[in-house]
Amino acid sequence: MKPLKELTKAELLALKESLTEEYKEAKEKGLKLDMSRGKPGLSQLDLSLPMLDVLSSKDEMKASDGVDVRNYGVLDGIPEAKQLMAEMMDTTPDHVIIFGNASLTIMYDTVARAMINGILGETPWCKLDKVKFLCPVPGYDRHFAITESFGIEMINIPLNSDGPDMDLVEKYVSEDPAVKGIWCVPKYANPTGISYSDEVVKRMAALKPAAKDFRIFWDNAYCIHHLYEEADKQDRILDILSECEKAGNPDMVFEFASTSKVSFSGAGVAAIASSEANLKDILKTMTIQTIGHDKINQLRHVKFFKNRAGLDAHMMKHAELMRPKFEAVLNVLSKELEGLDIGTWTTPRGGYFISFNALEGCAKEIVAKCKEAGVVMTGAGATYPYGKDPKDSNIRIAPSFPTPEEMHDAAELFALCVKLVSVEKLLQEM
Amino acid sequence: MKPLKELTKAELLALKESLTEEYKEAKEKGLKLDMSRGKPGLSQLDLSLPMLDVLSSKDEMKASDGVDVRNYGVLDGIPEAKQLMAEMMDTTPDHVIIFGNASLTIMYDTVARAMINGILGETPWCKLDKVKFLCPVPGYDRHFAITESFGIEMINIPLNSDGPDMDLVEKYVSEDPAVKGIWCVPKYANPTGISYSDEVVKRMAALKPAAKDFRIFWDNAYCIHHLYEEADKQDRILDILSECEKAGNPDMVFEFASTSKVSFSGAGVAAIASSEANLKDILKTMTIQTIGHDKINQLRHVKFFKNRAGLDAHMMKHAELMRPKFEAVLNVLSKELEGLDIGTWTTPRGGYFISFNALEGCAKEIVAKCKEAGVVMTGAGATYPYGKDPKDSNIRIAPSFPTPEEMHDAAELFALCVKLVSVEKLLQEM
Repeated sequence: MKPLKELTKAELLALKESLTEEYKEAKEKGLKLDMSRGKPGLSQLDLSLPMLDVLSSKDEMKASDGVDVRNYGVLDGIPEAKQLMAEMMDTTPDHVIIFGNASLTIMYDTVARAMINGILGETPWCKLDKVKFLCPVPGYDRHFAITESFGIEMINIPLNSDGPDMDLVEKYVSEDPAVKGIWCVPKYANPTGISYSDEVVKRMAALKPAAKDFRIFWDNAYCIHHLYEEADKQDRILDILSECEKAGNPDMVFEFASTSKVSFSGAGVAAIASSEANLKDILKTMTIQTIGHDKINQLRHVKFFKNRAGLDAHMMKHAELMRPKFEAVLNVLSKELEGLDIGTWTTPRGGYFISFNALEGCAKEIVAKCKEAGVVMTGAGATYPYGKDPKDSNIRIAPSFPTPEEMHDAAELFALCVKLVSVEKLLQEM
Repeated sequence: MKPLKELTKAELLALKESLTEEYKEAKEKGLKLDMSRGKPGLSQLDLSLPMLDVLSSKDEMKASDGVDVRNYGVLDGIPEAKQLMAEMMDTTPDHVIIFGNASLTIMYDTVARAMINGILGETPWCKLDKVKFLCPVPGYDRHFAITESFGIEMINIPLNSDGPDMDLVEKYVSEDPAVKGIWCVPKYANPTGISYSDEVVKRMAALKPAAKDFRIFWDNAYCIHHLYEEADKQDRILDILSECEKAGNPDMVFEFASTSKVSFSGAGVAAIASSEANLKDILKTMTIQTIGHDKINQLRHVKFFKNRAGLDAHMMKHAELMRPKFEAVLNVLSKELEGLDIGTWTTPRGGYFISFNALEGCAKEIVAKCKEAGVVMTGAGATYPYGKDPKDSNIRIAPSFPTPEEMHDAAELFALCVKLVSVEKLLQEM
């Protein structure tokens, strides 16, 4: 196929006519699919059903240290849950606090604590005139929603194939004391699926912030979420905690992870990993906010997964279910769009998303056309702070929830909409 | 027995000597009991063990509206959980949002939201020079810890046997726009066990606050926690939500409750009840903070308790376990202290605590002496804001965790310490 830009006006008009006809037919099919969110499919949730049987009324309800998991107490989590989540994050249990069912809540609360109490004795952010966060883009809309809700100014940082543009990150962080944080999804990033190179992680860990209370918000949401079993098809990233320690910045990072996309999305276990000083600081507020999180669910998770090997084996079952969905999308995109020069897309080796870049000024219209024909995508712009994609180009594709067959149909509709909107755009520009 | 105040110095000295001997012997017994917190006993936790069997891998994991409880979503709780918690709080499901495992966290977050976002469009409290809360005393230390952590000034309000001193409450609330809230435990109050009379509830609901964003923080923690089965031995309070509606103050109250002392203290279900406008306001922040709470645990609770009748029946089993512990304490206090005029105590019909008032200036010393002999009580002063009991008189007794036999021994030691410290006090004053 040749690039659409090389077509004559007459050819484009003819193409538009046939695509419009195709679109009309597609609409008549009455598709009704939602690929807006990174929501696990039902068969993925079924994988963890046996977890509901590992604790019954006949079981001893005690943690390894003898604590009754049914009662109040234990602010930081039972020892075996700390061990499990530490293994998941490639760190040690002394760096870990276990929370409730959602790492999103930990992130929100971590920003809230910084706003209200300040970090390690520094001025609470709510007392400052200006607080800024660096936001590698495209990125995760819920991160941006948190910072926006606190009135924190967000600065776009281009996300390259090996991580954020570190020249720019270093410049902002070292020069501007109002820059207090950066949102990172270091592995199988949301939405591009890229992972940070060792060099990027090391540069991140070696930042020399102007603000003492600058923190890296390291959302390791997809740390064990590979799509392939072969080791050489799996991304590996360096452990940010030990890299920060080595670089003399032990307190500079908050790492987050959860089992939301491992066990049950609504009923998993989430954790933060950080330095001893940071954890102590966090516990000071936590002891006011709660008497402890759900320890029964912590024990349930440990009994089911046992250890990192158990988690990894379980994730391979997820991979088997996810791979065909990703491949369905990628195959359709290749077949329908390759060579047309109207879009680029990522081919992630893990995570939950494929990121698509359309011709500038086309994303909103493509998403609207998909919706009109029954396929709901993540809103265009959502992958940027304030919902504003300056190029109106990026679209996040979330293949997890529909079946592979549905994903195939949805991808075909998506490719059709990309072509139709691109042709219209090219015609306008003539 | 005659009042110790009527004893001569010689009699007091002789008494001191024999009490000191008794105390020495008591210390040698090597008691090791903790009655510092309102922590359910193990046999109470056992009552809910069958809840672990109501959901297994073979069960359908759907809420009544068809939602898969394992997946993301449903910010306000599954319908049947809202129904159950509404019945528990004597209100309707449209007034309810379900949260995680702890009402304490809801309370903390409710104050945090007011600080950061403000309530219903009013100025965020963190932007104000001064925010004040009324604190009926003695009260719940964790309430006071929340307000203290946000730098909110706390004002002591005497708690009478029918509720807070409403003349004083009305005066503060109507005159001072900096007064933004009042902490209430309206039923079987922590620690006195008293319940608010209808008149107090009605006056509370009819407050005319100087501040538009004044809210009653109605911690209905012990709403179904009776000690006796007979209806005439159970306290009843009016539903604050409908009373506020009737009084033209529909938005003036946040009500909190949980199953922490019904099912499992660490793994229960908590809820807020409030007006439609308040709930909408709360959901605006919640949607940034979480994708939803643990719906599997919500379904588990509903399947186990079914409805209010199920809850009530279950609470009667708790009552059977709790009653002997309360009675053990009350019997010892009567036997050992009645007529001595060195202390008064409450005889609650529900809840988790007995409140003891020692002679002025004796509480700290009594608690210290108990601790020295192996019985840990709630720290003296804890029942007052800033941990400061102006009279150093109030002591909270939490009989739930030890066995009735242990409670008997602990109460004997406590009574002994009360006598010893009181005698010393009386001698000093001579």
